[in-house]
Amino acid sequence: VTEAEFLALLRPLATHAAARGLMDDAAVLAISGVGDLVLTHDVLVEGVHFLPDDPPEDVAWKLLAVNLSDLAAKGATPVGVLLGYPLSDADWDAAFVRGLGKALAQFNVALLGGDTVTGPRVLSLTAIGRAIIAPSRIGALAGDALWVTGMIGRAGLGLLGDPDHLDAYRRPTPRLTEGQTLGPIVHAMMDVSDGLLIDARRMADASGLAVEIDLDAVPVAGERMAAVTAGDDYELLFALPADIEPPVAATRIGSFATGSGLTLRDESGPVTLPDRLGWQHGI
Amino acid sequence: VTEAEFLALLRPLATHAAARGLMDDAAVLAISGVGDLVLTHDVLVEGVHFLPDDPPEDVAWKLLAVNLSDLAAKGATPVGVLLGYPLSDADWDAAFVRGLGKALAQFNVALLGGDTVTGPRVLSLTAIGRAIIAPSRIGALAGDALWVTGMIGRAGLGLLGDPDHLDAYRRPTPRLTEGQTLGPIVHAMMDVSDGLLIDARRMADASGLAVEIDLDAVPVAGERMAAVTAGDDYELLFALPADIEPPVAATRIGSFATGSGLTLRDESGPVTLPDRLGWQHGI
Repeated sequence: VTEAEFLALLRPLATHAAARGLMDDAAVLAISGVGDLVLTHDVLVEGVHFLPDDPPEDVAWKLLAVNLSDLAAKGATPVGVLLGYPLSDADWDAAFVRGLGKALAQFNVALLGGDTVTGPRVLSLTAIGRAIIAPSRIGALAGDALWVTGMIGRAGLGLLGDPDHLDAYRRPTPRLTEGQTLGPIVHAMMDVSDGLLIDARRMADASGLAVEIDLDAVPVAGERMAAVTAGDDYELLFALPADIEPPVAATRIGSFATGSGLTLRDESGPVTLPDRLGWQHGI
Repeated sequence: VTEAEFLALLRPLATHAAARGLMDDAAVLAISGVGDLVLTHDVLVEGVHFLPDDPPEDVAWKLLAVNLSDLAAKGATPVGVLLGYPLSDADWDAAFVRGLGKALAQFNVALLGGDTVTGPRVLSLTAIGRAIIAPSRIGALAGDALWVTGMIGRAGLGLLGDPDHLDAYRRPTPRLTEGQTLGPIVHAMMDVSDGLLIDARRMADASGLAVEIDLDAVPVAGERMAAVTAGDDYELLFALPADIEPPVAATRIGSFATGSGLTLRDESGPVTLPDRLGWQHGI
C-alpha cells in the first residue's frame, strides 16, 4: 500500500497524545515537571536512501543527521541514539563506526544502545531529545509569515553530482541550535526533508490553512523550481506572527491565510504549481 | 565483523551512563525527580528472525513482544513504540497492522511514530518505558540465588513445529507484570532471549561472578539440554539474595559464587557443558 494508506491504517493505533496523530516529525512525550521528551525513528535503505558505493562514513553521518533534524524541528536538544545495524564486512563496519563516532561527537550525542542483525543493509536509528516545549507542525495561524533557514536546493545539486554541493547532500547539518532558539516562539515548525513546496503545503494542511510562497524571496542554489522541489536540505521551515523577526538567520518566504492549498507567486504574479512538489515517503 | 567485534568498536561511542556500556538489554536514562526512562530497539529480518510464510500478524506480535520483553527485564511499564516499516503488498500490510493493533492493545501500549520506507522486509521497533529504578544485569552478588519465571524450551519446540508450543514461539508473552514487581528488589535481571545457559553465563560474566545451574531444577518442555540452549522463551532470569523468596511465580535454578564461568550439575553430580550454549546475536 502507499504510505498515506498505511498511515491511515496505523492512525487508530496511535492513541497516545505523544503520537500527535502521526502527523508530526517526531513523537513528543510530555513528562510532568520535566518538559517534553522528543523521539524520532528513521530508516535508511541501501539503494533507496543511499548508494552501495557511498562512503560508509557518510551513510553514518546521514543516518544521524536526518534523525537529529527531526529533533531540531521540535526545538529539542539531543540526548542519545539507539542504532539498528546489519553486520557487514570488516572494512564497511569499521568505516561506518568511524563516521558515526565523528558525527556523534560533532553534535554532542551519545550512543545509548540498539541491535545488531544479519541481513540486508537497512539501517535504523532512534534519536531521543529534550525540549522545554516542542512546537508542532499544526500550529500556524492565518496572518503568520513563513520563514526558512539557510539555502534551498544545495542537497539536490549534490545528489546530481555537483562537487560544490556534494557535502550538503552527503553530510547535511541539522539546524539544532536554530531549532532550540526557535522552539519556544514559533507557531509551527518542521524540517525541509522532502522539498520546500511539499513540506510547506504539509504545514498548511496540518494547520488547516492556505499558504502562499514568494519564489523570488526563497534563497536557492541552482534552478529555482528544481531547488524548491528537491529534498534533503534539512533546513527549518517555521511560522511566526507577521510582526516578529526571528532571532536566527532566516528568510521570510511567504504567508499563511484562511483557506487551503499552496499557491506560488513571483514579481510577475502567480506561478503555476509544478506537477511534482517533492518526495513522498516517510511517516 | 562479529557482533562482539562490532560492539568493541561501538563501545567508545557509548559515553553516556544511560548506555550502560552496551552491556544491558536496554538503555536506561535517569530523569531527575521522575525515575528511569528505559529505551530498547530490536530489528527483525525476514529469513533470519521470521520466515517469509509466517503470518504477518505473528510477525507484528513478535516484533512488539521481543522489545517489551527487554522493558520487562528492566522492570519498566511500557509507554509507547516507534515503528520502522517497509511498505509491502496490501494484504501483508493490512494483516501486519491488524496484528500490531491486537498486540498493542494486549499490552496496553500506544504507537507513537516511526518511519515507512521502500525496501527489503526488515522491521524495526523502539520501545519506551518507565521504571522507578531499572535493575541491570551486572548486579548479582556472590551467594545470590538464580531464579527463572515460567518454563524453558517451549519456544524451541514451537520453532521445530510442535503444534502445542507454536504459540510460545510465534506469540511470546513478555513478563511485564513480573518484571515490574521484581524490578525494585532483584540484584540483577535480564530476559532469556538467546537461551538459558548463554544468558545465565552473560549475567555471571557481567557481574564478575561464577554461576552454577542445577539442571534438575529447571522447569523444561521437551529434552533437557535442548530446552536450556533454545532461545526465544522471553522468561525472566534474576538474582536474589538466597534468603528471599520472589513475590512472583518462579523457580530457583542455581546460585552465584566468586569466580567465573558457568557450571552445570544434576542429582548425579557435575554435567559437562554443551558445545553450544545458545544463540549469539543482538546488542
